[in-house]
Amino acid sequence: MSITVVGSVAFDSITTPAGSRERCLGGAATYFSLAASYFTPVRVVAVVGEDFTAAEESVFRARSIDLAGLERAPGKSFFWAGNYLQSLSEAKTEQTDLNVFADFNPQIPASYEDTRFLFLANIDPVLQLRVRQALPGAQLVCGDTMNYWIHDHREALLRTLAHLDVLLINDTEARLLSGESNPLRAAKKILTLGPRALVVKHGEYGATAYLGPDLFAAESASVPSVFRAPALPLDEVIDPTGAGDSFAGGFFGYIAAQPEFTPEVLRRALFYGSVMGSFAVERFGTERLQQLTRAEIDARFAALHQITHLDPIHQIPDLKSTGSSR
Amino acid sequence: MSITVVGSVAFDSITTPAGSRERCLGGAATYFSLAASYFTPVRVVAVVGEDFTAAEESVFRARSIDLAGLERAPGKSFFWAGNYLQSLSEAKTEQTDLNVFADFNPQIPASYEDTRFLFLANIDPVLQLRVRQALPGAQLVCGDTMNYWIHDHREALLRTLAHLDVLLINDTEARLLSGESNPLRAAKKILTLGPRALVVKHGEYGATAYLGPDLFAAESASVPSVFRAPALPLDEVIDPTGAGDSFAGGFFGYIAAQPEFTPEVLRRALFYGSVMGSFAVERFGTERLQQLTRAEIDARFAALHQITHLDPIHQIPDLKSTGSSR
Repeated sequence: MSITVVGSVAFDSITTPAGSRERCLGGAATYFSLAASYFTPVRVVAVVGEDFTAAEESVFRARSIDLAGLERAPGKSFFWAGNYLQSLSEAKTEQTDLNVFADFNPQIPASYEDTRFLFLANIDPVLQLRVRQALPGAQLVCGDTMNYWIHDHREALLRTLAHLDVLLINDTEARLLSGESNPLRAAKKILTLGPRALVVKHGEYGATAYLGPDLFAAESASVPSVFRAPALPLDEVIDPTGAGDSFAGGFFGYIAAQPEFTPEVLRRALFYGSVMGSFAVERFGTERLQQLTRAEIDARFAALHQITHLDPIHQIPDLKSTGSSR
Repeated sequence: MSITVVGSVAFDSITTPAGSRERCLGGAATYFSLAASYFTPVRVVAVVGEDFTAAEESVFRARSIDLAGLERAPGKSFFWAGNYLQSLSEAKTEQTDLNVFADFNPQIPASYEDTRFLFLANIDPVLQLRVRQALPGAQLVCGDTMNYWIHDHREALLRTLAHLDVLLINDTEARLLSGESNPLRAAKKILTLGPRALVVKHGEYGATAYLGPDLFAAESASVPSVFRAPALPLDEVIDPTGAGDSFAGGFFGYIAAQPEFTPEVLRRALFYGSVMGSFAVERFGTERLQQLTRAEIDARFAALHQITHLDPIHQIPDLKSTGSSR
């Protein structure tokens, strides 16, 4: 089933310990849609300027991503420059030019109106809510946000949160949104704000999903309310840009491709999010996400499974499950 | 099979956001031996002063911990005071009085000479090596260390590392010891220093084991070199003191209780480490570790399994493993 994503399509200039790239194709909607495109068809709602050429367009077309909702506006595309020289965990922003993004007013093409899966990438929560309301048929709505909106636009953000099914943020954002430093208490508080599930990303340590009591009501008694998926330890992180959006693409792309949304689908989606995040950081910009194969994705899922899953106890010779002493 | 542990037995004064305690029973060997005692018999090598009374001794006796190697010296026991008011992840030390620990020269009772499992808690690496060499029959030796020894006593530490089977440290220590910020590269470098396996603790995010190529030589081709176990999200952390030593006790206690040391035993040991660490922080000092039941430990292992393990794919109705789009 198709996903519609609204968010930024941008150019990024990036410096990391591994080198530099000028004006890579970037933006949250770009990373999200490339990652999700390996699981399900994707439709983009975004705005770009006159510097967005056939070369950039071909990156989306090669993955069969629908650009009917990509508005072309006079002027330049959103531009961001940052470096990771101090830490690979956090970018230092050197420049942000909103350009055509400053006046972004998302327009939904008629061909998107049957959207059932909607991803609201990190943009102004007022615009997120507007898109959500323009697609009343959306059955599962997943959204991201960031410190700036949590801190300076809290009221607008709270109005949007009330209409989300799944909120996907990181540790710092969860702490700031909830005002709680304990992760479990923070999650419980956020689940009272609207989202029926919360996914908190921990960077190199993976992610945790917290399921609200009404998410899978019929099964709630037997469903654990927490699930954790690790990240894959990598020999080298070339460029962390877009890791979180790629995680979101793998996570939501997998969900949209399944016949129904169940607790087990949500857990596996967390693993696929981790898989796609791990690919994103292996090359600069979207390089790695442009050229994946299904076999590579399956192999990495298997690797992540192998480094986290115990053997079933009945398969282990001479090993008592209780570990009692001899 | 019994474990011998050498390390500190101390008194701690602790302040956390949940309150304060004066002169709790503490020390790495204390937390380690209490946690390990639920899996296997434990023998302690340590020194205490005249302030260590029958009340403290009874805590060990109640768990059948062997105190033949506990030396009583004139003077006071090791004392530490610290607070966690800024962060539950890191203590701020307010006072450290080595007292009788300043002249600690570990003596091994004859009754410990058949030791096959040896844990070297965080003490001077010169003493760690002396104990290791005094117990030549030890077949599996696991050790801890800290930033102070890595930074100021590196040569002595490197001599000790050459005689360890398993090194158990945290993220910061792994980075400092290896000089590498990438966790996987740090692990590979540390595995060239002597230990055949490295366990890196990540606090609230769990732990990762890295297995050197010669650890399970016969099976190395099929064995993944990395395994990750999460921590259990907890509603409240009352006192983080001793969490790492309790993790070590669960980890090594489980290993010592098994008929053989296999990759699967090491992986399960990581889960039992996480289980015992999660109990330790639920009360001040060693309160919680003194009164556990086997049923509580099994239930927490099951909870940790449930929040991290996907269902086998053949048990999931209508769910394709590949997540291909429809």
